[in-house]
Parts: sequence; structure tokens; C-alpha cells
Amino acid sequence: MLVRIGCHFDHEAVGATPSLWQVRPRPDGPHRIESESWETPAPTRSYVDAYGNLCDRLTLPAGPSTLRYDATVEVPMAFDEFDISANQASIDDLPDEAFVYLLPSRFCWPEVLYDAAWEMFGATDPGWARAQAVSDWVHENIRYEVGASTPLTTAYDVWQSRVGVCRDLTQLGITLCRALNLPARYVGGYLPDIGVAPPDLPMDFCSWYEVWLGGRWWTFDPRNNEPRTGRVVIARGRDALDAAMVTIWGSAELKVMTVWADEAGGADGGD
Amino acid sequence: MLVRIGCHFDHEAVGATPSLWQVRPRPDGPHRIESESWETPAPTRSYVDAYGNLCDRLTLPAGPSTLRYDATVEVPMAFDEFDISANQASIDDLPDEAFVYLLPSRFCWPEVLYDAAWEMFGATDPGWARAQAVSDWVHENIRYEVGASTPLTTAYDVWQSRVGVCRDLTQLGITLCRALNLPARYVGGYLPDIGVAPPDLPMDFCSWYEVWLGGRWWTFDPRNNEPRTGRVVIARGRDALDAAMVTIWGSAELKVMTVWADEAGGADGGD
Amino acid sequence: MLVRIGCHFDHEAVGATPSLWQVRPRPDGPHRIESESWETPAPTRSYVDAYGNLCDRLTLPAGPSTLRYDATVEVPMAFDEFDISANQASIDDLPDEAFVYLLPSRFCWPEVLYDAAWEMFGATDPGWARAQAVSDWVHENIRYEVGASTPLTTAYDVWQSRVGVCRDLTQLGITLCRALNLPARYVGGYLPDIGVAPPDLPMDFCSWYEVWLGGRWWTFDPRNNEPRTGRVVIARGRDALDAAMVTIWGSAELKVMTVWADEAGGADGGD
Amino acid sequence: MLVRIGCHFDHEAVGATPSLWQVRPRPDGPHRIESESWETPAPTRSYVDAYGNLCDRLTLPAGPSTLRYDATVEVPMAFDEFDISANQASIDDLPDEAFVYLLPSRFCWPEVLYDAAWEMFGATDPGWARAQAVSDWVHENIRYEVGASTPLTTAYDVWQSRVGVCRDLTQLGITLCRALNLPARYVGGYLPDIGVAPPDLPMDFCSWYEVWLGGRWWTFDPRNNEPRTGRVVIARGRDALDAAMVTIWGSAELKVMTVWADEAGGADGGD
Repeated sequence: MLVRIGCHFDHEAVGATPSLWQVRPRPDGPHRIESESWETPAPTRSYVDAYGNLCDRLTLPAGPSTLRYDATVEVPMAFDEFDISANQASIDDLPDEAFVYLLPSRFCWPEVLYDAAWEMFGATDPGWARAQAVSDWVHENIRYEVGASTPLTTAYDVWQSRVGVCRDLTQLGITLCRALNLPARYVGGYLPDIGVAPPDLPMDFCSWYEVWLGGRWWTFDPRNNEPRTGRVVIARGRDALDAAMVTIWGSAELKVMTVWADEAGGADGGD
Repeated sequence: MLVRIGCHFDHEAVGATPSLWQVRPRPDGPHRIESESWETPAPTRSYVDAYGNLCDRLTLPAGPSTLRYDATVEVPMAFDEFDISANQASIDDLPDEAFVYLLPSRFCWPEVLYDAAWEMFGATDPGWARAQAVSDWVHENIRYEVGASTPLTTAYDVWQSRVGVCRDLTQLGITLCRALNLPARYVGGYLPDIGVAPPDLPMDFCSWYEVWLGGRWWTFDPRNNEPRTGRVVIARGRDALDAAMVTIWGSAELKVMTVWADEAGGADGGD
Repeated sequence: MLVRIGCHFDHEAVGATPSLWQVRPRPDGPHRIESESWETPAPTRSYVDAYGNLCDRLTLPAGPSTLRYDATVEVPMAFDEFDISANQASIDDLPDEAFVYLLPSRFCWPEVLYDAAWEMFGATDPGWARAQAVSDWVHENIRYEVGASTPLTTAYDVWQSRVGVCRDLTQLGITLCRALNLPARYVGGYLPDIGVAPPDLPMDFCSWYEVWLGGRWWTFDPRNNEPRTGRVVIARGRDALDAAMVTIWGSAELKVMTVWADEAGGADGGD
Repeated sequence: MLVRIGCHFDHEAVGATPSLWQVRPRPDGPHRIESESWETPAPTRSYVDAYGNLCDRLTLPAGPSTLRYDATVEVPMAFDEFDISANQASIDDLPDEAFVYLLPSRFCWPEVLYDAAWEMFGATDPGWARAQAVSDWVHENIRYEVGASTPLTTAYDVWQSRVGVCRDLTQLGITLCRALNLPARYVGGYLPDIGVAPPDLPMDFCSWYEVWLGGRWWTFDPRNNEPRTGRVVIARGRDALDAAMVTIWGSAELKVMTVWADEAGGADGGD
């Protein structure tokens, strides 16, 4: 299945403003690129960070500037996979690289929600059932509300307020999983609305998380909490910090942000 | 100069208890190993994490158990270097790998102390003078007190309480540096008491931090705030989380912990 | 300075043919991308290899197919830097990552040319002078001739035949440097003809090498053997194997290959 | 099962002689260390190379010197696993990191033995049967003879001479596998003589190789060509070059080399 993804940012900067971007897909995703174009308002240097994410550095010029990414990618047709028999690895059996996803991070504090997590989910079967129970609980108990949180909002704040955006639901799910010794990592990406009811909000970047069960990572998405198709991963990390779309050092106003992720039609798949 | 370093841990565990250790020096330190021995109470698997730290995984057996590391290493004779003319890199000129050390982390929240940092240090000259002013301020204003903090204490807590242990002073220094756009990274290691007044506390693991100035990393150590010699780096990371000596999943009581770091004499350098 | 680089390949494959490409610039080059487009005849998966090169995997479809990369990048104005006072590091002082570039590789056999290298260059001053003497010697003694070598030709073959293409001159320079304990690594990339006499050959991918001297890597290019500007690095490695533009598993005929690397004019910089 | 492994080297050097060692186990092996000691004649710096191997750098002093590694490690009881139903991945389905093990290297030239490999093994079933046929053929057709080869001997030389040591049989097996599109990587390590007839040669470092089949790497060992137990991996790479026990820059005579790898008994497991 072909999906067209991309984004368009217009900024207005007071002076030259360094910035760091994560809006292009990870080089190693399950998606495969068929064509892409990338236009930036200033020369751009790229690197791959310690999580394997592609990061782009550039200095926004003073005045208005536009950055645009556009790609047609092939993604598996399948909806998110699941396996209710996937068991929970003992700590001994985790792969080395999973340990970092058990630890606390800037916005996810499993050590603070440890008692709560075990009280709520300790009676579920370890493994898939427990991870699903976490996702179900977040989906049912945290109200999705645009503007409900700030860039400083932690999962613990959301635990208390019971309201948040995509990033907040994701981070609370991650926090509860880690408290239950389930390695969980944050994912930011593109998610087309394929096979679901028409959304009532403009398209935006999305986030979800992955849990290590039965020897591999599985997608959990407490905002939607139902299998989806067409996810394209931009970045993975411990929490939203590691997958920030854009970080700016200085003063630049975001005038326009447009994100697209749609099934690419036949001949008319373009814009 | 030869330094003898090591540690000895006795635990008493209720049952088999998975654990993760960072007590052996980083493979790539400026130190060089002359001899070492490593004894663990159970078979141990090692890996190098994304920061380049050597991590050891093992399951503590039920009952009492001992883990011991002992090494003789050569370290440069020189005291911590400094260069008051080292300038501050613009964001544009930072190496890629420095960016992660500008960002917030679990215990270091530069975005929360941003205004305070600029109010206090904005009038200093950018570069070495500014980084030194941060270290001086932490040294003079945060009282060192054993037991003043918990594993959950953030640099922001320390900012408010004005009291902490080694880890806390380090993390506050890091936080202020990052708020000032100075990349700063946490270091845990062995630090012998060479050429200084006899300490009144038993030897322990130490922490300090490194700041990117003038094209390289430099050591800052607000607890001591004077040049030292003989540092052996165990682990680097965003904050104390990434350099935790031991992380335990389950219930094991620490009965004895001994740490040593001493100039190795002639024939009598051993224990 | 803006440079326009890119390539266009037309293949005709008998059946579906797996292929591996290295034609896009390394993410971490000194160049910076201003805009780029990338079109492939089939969905493409990317990864970054152990040398930091960006590799693209795709399966060429049966029949004709086209792959095209096109980018406008900013490169430093400066011509290749040099420092005739750069000294030769002792083996002890090499950075860890330089060791692999002292060792033999598929096409570079320093152990075989060891005696010859010392006989020819042992009387030169170690450091820049010795590295330059190698480049001068290769430039003067190996005749450049299109079609003079095959994909199996080693630097030792070229040593004997005294004739070769770009890749061959590069590999012989590398081999002699390694024999002299100078770490040397292969580079493949785009090299515009800026400020030089008009070339009499169609543009192609180029190769040169880098030598570790005085604490950094420096460009040496025995084919041209004079400073150039506008190099854009695609791939680095031990020798041409690690930087192969395209590797194909199966049967696909290359019908057309076009490479471009030109100073980008003002409004008319395009094709 | 506990195995005691280690090695002892005595050198006599004319002057200070830089050296690079790979004799300690890889940090990420399936083995787990219970205790180890490491003594070197000079301060030693370690690093992990691009293949994940632990490398030790030190400068042998003038005169006699001793280097010694000794460890007790736990290894799985199981003999080398096999699965005759393991299928051969298509190139498309290989993991990214397998590609480098399809390519030629210093001592393994699959492109030269391509026709021979397909002529000999093209009629076997792809997958396990084909890989096993290669190992069987090498075992049966290449005579093991101490001293039959030099450090410059390639697999192609062995193909012609039909004689070699452990390293040579391994490299020929690798070369034939790669020619057949089976990713194969060189392994150097310790291999105890457990459950086999008493060897008639003193213990030495051993080598074998791993082939990617059915979604994982499997051990093949054409010298022994029967399942063994107790392997401890020191280094992996493209061929023997990447796993060299010791590389020396200068002049040092090896006086004594002792290697041990034995099942560790009860109280008397030591020396």
C-alpha cells in the first residue's frame, strides 16, 4: 500500500535561529520510500542519533521561512499486529537494548507510579493481557483534549489530571508499562486515517508506543486503541523529548504547520 | 601514576534478583588498565550501552552474595585541565553528539530553570567564565550533606532546598549549563584523594560533569571545585540515571558497600 | 557555495533483481543539503552501515527501470586544506577508530608492499611530507586510463601494471600509506570541476582518500593531486568495496548512467 | 556448565612495541563471566570496534613481557544447535547488518569462486542443506596441517592447495557460502575439548563461522564438522583479519603462547 506523507512548516524568526528537526522517517522503518523531496530554508546537516533517528540541523534565517518534506512510501497492508499469547520476558531474558526502556525518563516516572501500577494491573496476567489492560485503561480514563497539556507536562501530571493529548496518553501508557517491568518506548510518526471514521481534527503528527513482549516489539496506541494501518515511524526514544519534531534555540514564531498522511491513490495520488 | 580502584558489595536477597551494574571503568577512558579482577556471585553478561558505558547484568542469588571489582590503572599525572580562554560554541558549531546534552532529562530540567540561569549568569562572559561561574555558584550555595536527598530528587528540588550530595550538585550544575546553551554531561567514577586534605567521609563513588567548550569536553566538579588528579570514569550520560552504579529489580538488601581509589604505592599497593 | 549533485541510472533487468546503493551523500558530511529529491523504481529501505554510510536497498523490477537522485547542497568555499607541518601520530597516539584503517583490506594489501613502501618513502620526513610523497608518486607513476582495470583489480595489481582508474590510484595511495603506518581510508563522492580546466571525460563518481595526520583526517587525491573545492562525500570505508555505488544480486544491464556535480548558478541552477 | 578459559603470552621485544589484542571474550556473548583476571605488561586501553569486539591496545616494553587473561565463564550446556529445515533468506529479506557478510574481504573472495561454488553446490537445496554441504565438502577435501599456511594465505589459495589450518578451513567455508548468497561471518574464540576424543595437539585459539539461515546465525565448523559445546566467542568479523588475536607494529618475538579452555571441575577447577 502506498501512503503519501509529509509536512510543511512556515516560521517567522526574529534573527538567525538554530533548529533541530525530526520529521523525516527513520531510515530503518518497515516502510520503504518510493520517492521523496526535502526542501529547507537553509543548508541542512543530518545525523543519526543514538536511537537511530534521523535528525536535521539548520539555522532558520531571519524573517519568513518554509521547510517542507514530501514522500510516497510503501507500507505493509496489514493492520497493527497482535498476539494475545505473547508472554512477558523476565528481566533476565530481556535483550540488552531493552533496559533503557525500563528506566525513568524526563516525562515518564515509573518509580513514582510503581505502587499504583501494581495495584491496578497486578491482578492481570503478565504479558499481552497486562500490556493491553494498561492501554485500555489509558484509553478509557484519560480524556483526549487539544491544548490540555504543555511541553512540560509529565505522565504523572496526566495521571493526576486525567486529560491530555496524544503524547500524554502515550507517555502515561509507557510509564505504567515500565512500572510493571514491561520495556516500553515512545514512537512519533505519521498515521493515516485509513479505514476509520473521518477525523474531526486536522491531521497532525501522531505518537504511540511499543512494548517488548514475546521476543519482539509490538505497537500500542491508547489514543485509538484499535488496530490501524499505515504507520510510518519518524523517531523512537525514551519519551517525547527524544522524538521532538522541532527544537528551536531562539525566537521563531510558527505561522503554519500542515501534516499529511493519506493513502496514495492511483494516478491522482499527488497533491 | 598508578591508582588502585575497586569496590565490594555484599547483598542479601530474598529470592533471585535481577540486577544491572555500572562499576567497572568505561573501556575508552584516558586511564589504562594494568591488571584487574572481577568476581560476581552469578554468571554475568556484559554490554556496552548507547553512551559507551560498560554494563553488567546478573541475577543475585537468594541469600548473601558478594560482588567485587579490583584494578590497578594508570592515569595521567596531570590535575584537571582548564583553559579560561575556551569559548562557547554557537549551537550551529556543536558536534552532533553534543545535542543530547543540551536537552532536559529525568533529573535535569533546564527549561524550568531557564529564566533563573540567565538572570544569574547572563552577565558573565560566555564560554569558560560562564561555566566556571555556574560551578562556583553551586559549590558556594548548595550545602553538601550526606542523606540530604533521595533517588527521586531532581536538580530542581536541589535548587529549591539548597542542599544535596555529590550527585545533586552535579545535576544542578548540569541543569544550569544546559539552560545557558552549554552542553553538559554527567560522569560517575572513581576519584582518589590525592594531594588534598584527608577526607572525613569514607570513600564512595563520585560524580562530576563535563562541559563542551572550545571544541572539547572539560571536567567541572562543583563539590570539590578545585583541580584534582586521578579520576577514572565509569559511566557518562544525561544524568545520574544513565550512570547508576546498581539497579535492582526485586528485593535485595545492601549489607556492605566499600569503594576504594588510592594512589598505588610500590610493593605495598595491594590490600 | 551551492553545488548541484546527482545521478541517474537506467537498468534493464531480466527478473526482479535485489540491489544495494550508495549514491546519496553521507548524513554527516561537511556539506549541507538545501533541497533534494530521490526517486527509485521500487520501494526502498535505507540503513546506515558500520562506517556511517547511507545504504539503500531495493529490488529492481523486471524490465527497464530508472533511479534518480538530485540535490542542491552547500559546501565550504575553501579548497582542500593542507598543513605541511602536520605530524605523524605514533601508533600509541592514534584514536581507536583509526586502527581499522591501518589494516589490510580486500583491495589494499599493505603487508605485501611493506618493503617497497619503506624503500621508496622511508627517507622522507614522517608526517605530511611522507603522505604527500606517496600521493605525488602515485600521481606521477600510475597512468590514468579508462577501462584499465576491473572490479577485481587490487592495488597490488596496479602497483605492477602502473595503470588504472580513479579507484585504483586511490587504493594504491591507501596501501602505501598503511604500509608506512599512516591510517588511510577510502572515500567515494561527487567532485565538481570548479576552477579547473574543462574535463575531457564525462562526469563520473570520484574517489580519493583521507590520511590521519596531526590529529585529524586530510584529503589526498592522487588522480588530481591539487587542491579542489566542492567535494561531497557519499561513503567512506576500507577500500572501494565499502563504498560501491551499486551492488547487484542477479542480472540487470546498466543502460545509462549519468552523474552530475556542478556549481549551482543563480536562477538557472537546475537542469 | 562452567568453563575455564584464558591465555598466556610471553614476548621479547627489541624496543617499545605497540600492539593490539583480541583475546578477551566479546562483551555480548552467550557466555556469562563468573570471575576473570587480566594482567598486562603495560597500561592498556580498551575499545569496542565496529563489529562489537573488545580490543586492547598496549605498548609492549623492551625486553621480556607477559600478558595473561584468565576467566571462569558459564556457557550453555547445549551442543551446537542445528535445524535442517532452516531456509535461505532471499536477499530482500536479509537484515541490514547481514549485507557486509555477503561481500568479499581481504582473505575471502566469493566473486572469484562464484562459478565453482554454483557448480559444486547449485544442485543442493538452498538453505541448511546447502550450507551443510559446503561445510562437509571443506571438512572432507581440505587437509588440516599445522604450518600449511601463512598470514597472507587467502581462501582462494586454500581452494587451490587443498590444505590449511583452522583459519583456512573457516575462510574457505565462508567464501563458498557468500558466493552462494549465504551471509557468513568469521568467529574466533575458545573451544574446549568436551565430549570428544583427546586432542593430539596443544590447545590453541580456534575459529569457525556463522551462517544466516532461517532468521538467525548458526555455527558451522568445518574443521570439526560435528556439534561441540562450550564455545566462547572472542571476536567476529569479515575474516581472520578482523579477529586477529594480536597485531604488532614493530619487532617482538613471541616466546611462549599458552591457551586454555577446559570444563571447570568442582573445587579443583583452577590451576
